[in-house]
Amino acid sequence: MRMIVPMPGNENFAESLARAGGWELGHLEMRRFPDQESYVRLLSEVRGRSVDLVCSLVRPDAGFLGLMFAADAARELGATRVNLVAPYLAYMRQDSRFQPGEAVTSRTFARLLSGSFDKITTVDPHLHRYPTLADLYTARTLVLHAAPLLADWIGAEIAKPLIIGPDVESEQWVSSVAGRAGAPHAVARKIRRGDREVEIVLPDLSEWLDHQPVLIDDICSSGRTLIEAASELRLRGFPCPICVVVHALFSDDAYKMLAEASARIVSTDAVSHPSNAITLVPMIAESLECSEFSQGRV
Amino acid sequence: MRMIVPMPGNENFAESLARAGGWELGHLEMRRFPDQESYVRLLSEVRGRSVDLVCSLVRPDAGFLGLMFAADAARELGATRVNLVAPYLAYMRQDSRFQPGEAVTSRTFARLLSGSFDKITTVDPHLHRYPTLADLYTARTLVLHAAPLLADWIGAEIAKPLIIGPDVESEQWVSSVAGRAGAPHAVARKIRRGDREVEIVLPDLSEWLDHQPVLIDDICSSGRTLIEAASELRLRGFPCPICVVVHALFSDDAYKMLAEASARIVSTDAVSHPSNAITLVPMIAESLECSEFSQGRV
Repeated sequence: MRMIVPMPGNENFAESLARAGGWELGHLEMRRFPDQESYVRLLSEVRGRSVDLVCSLVRPDAGFLGLMFAADAARELGATRVNLVAPYLAYMRQDSRFQPGEAVTSRTFARLLSGSFDKITTVDPHLHRYPTLADLYTARTLVLHAAPLLADWIGAEIAKPLIIGPDVESEQWVSSVAGRAGAPHAVARKIRRGDREVEIVLPDLSEWLDHQPVLIDDICSSGRTLIEAASELRLRGFPCPICVVVHALFSDDAYKMLAEASARIVSTDAVSHPSNAITLVPMIAESLECSEFSQGRV
Repeated sequence: MRMIVPMPGNENFAESLARAGGWELGHLEMRRFPDQESYVRLLSEVRGRSVDLVCSLVRPDAGFLGLMFAADAARELGATRVNLVAPYLAYMRQDSRFQPGEAVTSRTFARLLSGSFDKITTVDPHLHRYPTLADLYTARTLVLHAAPLLADWIGAEIAKPLIIGPDVESEQWVSSVAGRAGAPHAVARKIRRGDREVEIVLPDLSEWLDHQPVLIDDICSSGRTLIEAASELRLRGFPCPICVVVHALFSDDAYKMLAEASARIVSTDAVSHPSNAITLVPMIAESLECSEFSQGRV
């Protein structure tokens, strides 16, 4: 028997997920004591249930202990499994020691989550040096892909799209989205000059000047990549691009600045944000259902 | 070879500690990426060193992952031991499931710290239902006591002190401070009505009306216990009390309100605060030195 339990801020997503799968929706209370320690209480009976905590891991530091507390509490209180549904998975980008002395945070984060959860389901984690999540996580992992959903949205909503990816590493991903949307595609070359500074070099796009450029990316954080690409496109005579991203992190004023440079910004609901227009709920619900079957736990 | 490395905010304490013990002071860099993930880099060579990370765990949630990252990095980079010096240890108060469904956060916190550190040194942890830290932590622990330092400060600074503890559980602790300070003592009875509301009942103190009341406590967070006790003392005709605490957490306006109700507030430097007047550094330095001897690692 499956129970979906949202961590704070994930209530809407969890509610939709529970409804989509016909599962019980559980509740927990979380607050802070005067000394700022977290208080966590499961308000639903989890004994005998397979519990899926829903927690998109955007800005993960402040809420991390609360998530660990909730997972341990569920297990102690008799949940048969304690899983994590994290539509956005954090700490995937520091996947190597780029400078001597650096902490490879992806490894520590994976170790801590793997110590508390049986299984982790996520969407388009930022895999770069690790070929798969299983190279990093000892907990079972299920990786889902938003590319078909992005393609279907673009195909349905945009006339004559030209799909553009942010860097050469995204070529395969961009081409799969473009293939399904029946659109041409290109990728930029990205030169990173710091956490917030990037330079974008576009290929020759003159044969598609009558197309609507659609910039796609897995994560939008500082927004600088997309803002630079939008600006380059304008210099080439294109109209303002439409931006479609999987994970709408949007730090500081990134959303405002990107909005000024683009015709529209669209994201999946992996991270709750005003730009959400593509829902991951049916895909995640289906994957949870399948794992029930594969575990013989219908 | 020992190296003392401060986590952010613990630089002064770590520097004094390194100086007191004649140990090398190490450095680390910590900042946040635009997406608010933590970046951690050890700037000192830790290979072959026994590393003591210094991190008082006041308001621990936001900095917790950073501490885990630093510990793992030190170990990966060849530190022979990775220890934690936490003058204040957090998450000791939720030591039981008071309501159904509650997370027993002390257990999870202990499990996570024990997974990253070889040894944890702390001062007066809030032990209530756990008889010792070893009942909670699988990492080696060393518990130090500030009572003698409080007693010596009171003995040296206050004429005719009457030492008063906040609750009956503190009787033994209060009596040991009073005994060393050569002063009479009493304890109040505390009735807790919520996170921030307490009622304080004092015993008959009329025989010490010519004494200076000194309220002592291990932790001051919301400050309500001491504020209530101070107000009760005034009603009995005593002068404004002097407050002496080990851990100066002081949430919200607690310090301001307690300052209005007392003649002076004094704390140890377990938690960095303007009220710090009693240093724990020599005691902690001595304990680290002894553990070097006992490990044959002079």
